[in-house]
Amino acid sequence: MSGNSIGQNFVVTTFGESHGVAIGCIIDGCPPGVELTEADMQHDLDRRRPGTSRYTTARREPDEVRILSGVFEGETTGTSIGLLIENTDQRSKDYSNIKDLFRPGHADYTYQQKYGQRDYRGGGRSSARETAMRVAAGAVAKKYLKQVHGVEIHAYLSQLGPIAAETVDFDQIEQNAFFFPDATKLDSLDEYMRELKKSGDSIGAKVSVVATGVPVGLGEPVFDRLDADIAHALMGINAVKGVEIGDGFEVVNQKGSEHRDLMSPAGFASNHAGGILGGISSGQPIIAHIAMKPTSSISVPGESMNAQGEVAEVITKGRHDPCVGIRAVPIAEAMLAIVLMDHLLRHRAQNMDVNSSTPIIGMR
Amino acid sequence: MSGNSIGQNFVVTTFGESHGVAIGCIIDGCPPGVELTEADMQHDLDRRRPGTSRYTTARREPDEVRILSGVFEGETTGTSIGLLIENTDQRSKDYSNIKDLFRPGHADYTYQQKYGQRDYRGGGRSSARETAMRVAAGAVAKKYLKQVHGVEIHAYLSQLGPIAAETVDFDQIEQNAFFFPDATKLDSLDEYMRELKKSGDSIGAKVSVVATGVPVGLGEPVFDRLDADIAHALMGINAVKGVEIGDGFEVVNQKGSEHRDLMSPAGFASNHAGGILGGISSGQPIIAHIAMKPTSSISVPGESMNAQGEVAEVITKGRHDPCVGIRAVPIAEAMLAIVLMDHLLRHRAQNMDVNSSTPIIGMR
Amino acid sequence: MSGNSIGQNFVVTTFGESHGVAIGCIIDGCPPGVELTEADMQHDLDRRRPGTSRYTTARREPDEVRILSGVFEGETTGTSIGLLIENTDQRSKDYSNIKDLFRPGHADYTYQQKYGQRDYRGGGRSSARETAMRVAAGAVAKKYLKQVHGVEIHAYLSQLGPIAAETVDFDQIEQNAFFFPDATKLDSLDEYMRELKKSGDSIGAKVSVVATGVPVGLGEPVFDRLDADIAHALMGINAVKGVEIGDGFEVVNQKGSEHRDLMSPAGFASNHAGGILGGISSGQPIIAHIAMKPTSSISVPGESMNAQGEVAEVITKGRHDPCVGIRAVPIAEAMLAIVLMDHLLRHRAQNMDVNSSTPIIGMR
Amino acid sequence: MSGNSIGQNFVVTTFGESHGVAIGCIIDGCPPGVELTEADMQHDLDRRRPGTSRYTTARREPDEVRILSGVFEGETTGTSIGLLIENTDQRSKDYSNIKDLFRPGHADYTYQQKYGQRDYRGGGRSSARETAMRVAAGAVAKKYLKQVHGVEIHAYLSQLGPIAAETVDFDQIEQNAFFFPDATKLDSLDEYMRELKKSGDSIGAKVSVVATGVPVGLGEPVFDRLDADIAHALMGINAVKGVEIGDGFEVVNQKGSEHRDLMSPAGFASNHAGGILGGISSGQPIIAHIAMKPTSSISVPGESMNAQGEVAEVITKGRHDPCVGIRAVPIAEAMLAIVLMDHLLRHRAQNMDVNSSTPIIGMR
Repeated sequence: MSGNSIGQNFVVTTFGESHGVAIGCIIDGCPPGVELTEADMQHDLDRRRPGTSRYTTARREPDEVRILSGVFEGETTGTSIGLLIENTDQRSKDYSNIKDLFRPGHADYTYQQKYGQRDYRGGGRSSARETAMRVAAGAVAKKYLKQVHGVEIHAYLSQLGPIAAETVDFDQIEQNAFFFPDATKLDSLDEYMRELKKSGDSIGAKVSVVATGVPVGLGEPVFDRLDADIAHALMGINAVKGVEIGDGFEVVNQKGSEHRDLMSPAGFASNHAGGILGGISSGQPIIAHIAMKPTSSISVPGESMNAQGEVAEVITKGRHDPCVGIRAVPIAEAMLAIVLMDHLLRHRAQNMDVNSSTPIIGMR
Repeated sequence: MSGNSIGQNFVVTTFGESHGVAIGCIIDGCPPGVELTEADMQHDLDRRRPGTSRYTTARREPDEVRILSGVFEGETTGTSIGLLIENTDQRSKDYSNIKDLFRPGHADYTYQQKYGQRDYRGGGRSSARETAMRVAAGAVAKKYLKQVHGVEIHAYLSQLGPIAAETVDFDQIEQNAFFFPDATKLDSLDEYMRELKKSGDSIGAKVSVVATGVPVGLGEPVFDRLDADIAHALMGINAVKGVEIGDGFEVVNQKGSEHRDLMSPAGFASNHAGGILGGISSGQPIIAHIAMKPTSSISVPGESMNAQGEVAEVITKGRHDPCVGIRAVPIAEAMLAIVLMDHLLRHRAQNMDVNSSTPIIGMR
Repeated sequence: MSGNSIGQNFVVTTFGESHGVAIGCIIDGCPPGVELTEADMQHDLDRRRPGTSRYTTARREPDEVRILSGVFEGETTGTSIGLLIENTDQRSKDYSNIKDLFRPGHADYTYQQKYGQRDYRGGGRSSARETAMRVAAGAVAKKYLKQVHGVEIHAYLSQLGPIAAETVDFDQIEQNAFFFPDATKLDSLDEYMRELKKSGDSIGAKVSVVATGVPVGLGEPVFDRLDADIAHALMGINAVKGVEIGDGFEVVNQKGSEHRDLMSPAGFASNHAGGILGGISSGQPIIAHIAMKPTSSISVPGESMNAQGEVAEVITKGRHDPCVGIRAVPIAEAMLAIVLMDHLLRHRAQNMDVNSSTPIIGMR
Repeated sequence: MSGNSIGQNFVVTTFGESHGVAIGCIIDGCPPGVELTEADMQHDLDRRRPGTSRYTTARREPDEVRILSGVFEGETTGTSIGLLIENTDQRSKDYSNIKDLFRPGHADYTYQQKYGQRDYRGGGRSSARETAMRVAAGAVAKKYLKQVHGVEIHAYLSQLGPIAAETVDFDQIEQNAFFFPDATKLDSLDEYMRELKKSGDSIGAKVSVVATGVPVGLGEPVFDRLDADIAHALMGINAVKGVEIGDGFEVVNQKGSEHRDLMSPAGFASNHAGGILGGISSGQPIIAHIAMKPTSSISVPGESMNAQGEVAEVITKGRHDPCVGIRAVPIAEAMLAIVLMDHLLRHRAQNMDVNSSTPIIGMR
């Protein structure tokens, strides 16, 4: 299977370029009987959508998703679900000047070398626009996980450049345009971003994502561990350069006696592991963090070269996010949801009680 | 496909428990015509093997790999390669006392909940013993990559607890039992480990892995990006809690003008990206870092519970590494090699010049 | 991967129901640089399209395919290709009377039991309408195979009920509405079909498909042999109940000395094998035959039961083909093309000369 | 995934050549809790084993399978199961004369062209010896299917050359060395085979396989239909040239009113479909037939060519079956079992009742 699919039993395959006719995806393996309408996906699409605040790109598209198949009389039928979003605000002209240019920090050069050609308009397939379909597919997974197992998945911006959240108030996240969980830092964020836009530069960010209510037992030894598949899914988001589970890189300087989460009949005493032991969910909240690089689409000039092998100066005009980490929040939720959904189905495939044919799961 | 396989065109499938009869693997998709003997794998197996220094577990097994198929008259034939290592030093009695115990920080609890039962001897399938087969398979990939493309892959211990390498001298790595690239720190490491063993505790570590000579163009948009698949492979190593590509989590506080790697006809001016742009190799060295948690197999007592749901105290006796990061060095190399090999074959599948049927690759 | 995808390196995933909004597919893994327009697919879509002759269903839809992604400035880019056909002539009212009915010989009962519900309109996902997307994807494969390797794929109706072709004239196939290669039988066919329509019944058929110019070496031991994957692809066409390669069931009564195809430096002396030896293409024409059952959508009354478990009489009115074998001709070509394309790419992935990095293929 | 694996949730991967060190396989995805010993596999291995009667090859090997992993205290643990059979009676000298020869009807030529080299000893990977591992893996599937769902799978030789069974008495099958269900034909078979051996020739055969007790609902639209995957698995057996489901090629001359299986609340009135409707099991017995070509390893001389491109005469001495169809009987059972097992697990993955989390299956 080539690279535009993710999952084994809950499989999402996407297509579409930034400035093509449309973007879309197929969800294969969704259980039947799930109530599903476009509205279930639209909320998360709107959270990801550009143009919703002054901190994100000014590209404005309604991003209205249409269900083309797999849903009948309001419920999923078990057959493949086709989803489509037409591209409406394409402005291809913005990009004609970079036709032969390899913008530093972008995929221009690598796509050109890999394929011998590329759709240069807006980054083509490498554009973050493609992630809209992940958000749509993730919304289906989120709905199922919540309905059947009570799983809740929430991401937030835990750090933007030098400004880190000191407290995590989940109620705050949807109250501000940064998806930031610490209300005391909102003014600093606002000021920081204003300065940043003025300078024409961009900034990195850290996004955290938490899933609660995950049943014990999800994840397959030895390569498709739950943490390995989460790392695959999250590192596959545009601009991500690092993934942590639980304490992540802090473990480098931890001792075993500090790190291990003691257990008692009442449960775990801590969650350094981030909800995964031996690659399998433990029933504790699953916690992951990702590092988002600063976008390279900035108006600060930079040296590069063109397809003819000549030196060229690059200034990105167009419409761009000064911090792509903000809009990555719903994408991180979607990717975690897709992985959990896939592993839930994978677990069910194998783990039924031999005698009773009921699932071995959540034996707590 | 269930979880014991990795790769799509170069596929490695493993089996075996810590204290079973044998461990083994099948490599499917290896090109024909590669000269291969057991000796090609033995070097890396010996580097991973326990009992080679006083800093690692005292379990002693020769770990002699046998090629059972797929090689004829000294060359691979293109058919599946069967590899086998017999388990010789199993000492199952060491583990009988933990039959009903859920050791904190281990996979005991999650395996029991997932499957309703488990092979408790030495961690069974969750034991790091399984990684010997990854090292063997990785050696095949390393050999091919080097022979055909000149790719070299080297890992090293970049940090052990509080002690970080300040310089990276690749020649140093194989000169010491820590795979440490900074000779000035060897005394401190030695002293630190002696204290640690005395205390019966363990410590985390950071391992870095670098591949040079990688052709431009490896990696598939959008889910199976090269960095996503590297993250999957590295996070799938036992005890890994974090993966970074290039600058990793440092990007959180970088500006776009700092982070982006400027290009000129002479090449890239820097390598913050770690050799991957838009999920595709750029031709620069690929750089990844992983965080290894401290092993939970320590002789410091800890509270836990047993299968009957009662409180129980756990002290791990047995033979264990105080820092599992050390032996992870050859494993990290192997996993990166497997991913690069798989992506090389995947790239070739799709990217042949339509007119000349020669590969589109390494167009530099 | 769930069941709506076929292929490993050239992957086609489809969605869509007979009476839904649209049908579509994603092609993942198509090489870059292939000139491609909608017109390349439209010819085969028109051949498959209903309503083109009095021998096929009267449902009339233009079946106009749109390329939504993966093609830029007239050439494939190597990224996933999204294709879409809107459903225009749906007439859902025709089917309301069978909402609770399990039509004999149809998938009504099995879908209902599998999923606990179903889209009953026109057979939903089990309708042959879905095969339009296979034909579109197959046209892409056909084009590439022809352009790069000179492979030609032609199917024809070799038998319709009692009337079998006695000669095979490839030039005849596109000259008549039956895709029949023996012009001397056209009057009989015409008369037979007229009688059949009058009786309200349907008839089975045999379709043959031949690929010439296939390079030696396609097919993977041991499960994904070329013949095994062809069998999978052809048996997966609606209404197919049998697949033969080469002499097929005639081999049951052949002796080894008759069956084996003798070779000489001038080539093979015969082709009983149908172009495949040991699961790998031999360079001879690949020959396959399929048995198509008579459609169960007939106006002859038949006993059945309904969802309430009561006896019910079924008479299918609607618009239906009296012989689904006719329109299966372009579908069989498409499926063979998809399999050959996939195996060509799979072969390339693994089989490059170790020293020269040129493909091992077509060594004739 | 390369070609040495079959299945998606119950995955069997094999390795090994006819005259290598050993053959083996890994079963990934087997549910935990299944009682399993070597004896469970040995019965079917003995049925497949050569040297058991005068009608099969005289090669004598005990074919003793060893379980290397995945079973603990007599039960499967849910982890990957490693199986191994050492090759003991290899007699490589028998084959040295064909080192440079392309035997007609064999895979010698195609392997050589595909890979640029081959293990010529006994056919290497293309030898039927590899099917021993399929039989072992199939025995695990058969055991589970029977224990959990009461599924029984029986194959038999339905025709050998001109001699076809006229009655099918399942009790007869294991009573004779032909696996033949019609006792009245045993003398004719015996005489026919005696003549055949004398002539040094071989003969084709037809094998039939029936599964009863299969739950309704197995099979995935649209490409991985149950019949498509059965066709893939059966066509992948060495020497198979045709696969039929239910009435197979007889449907070509059937009318819809004859073919369709009428239903009533009491069940189906007939089973022309062979237990599969729309690619999904109907709950009726699944019936498949395969055509086995006569082996090309005969002592009748035949013209061929060698690797130097020169004319050469071929006479196969060695030890060979005059009718490979006989020993294919347990292989056909094994392959059907593997497919049903895989589809059972795939079905379970997706089809759980949304509200109660119990499987949607067997709603009869």
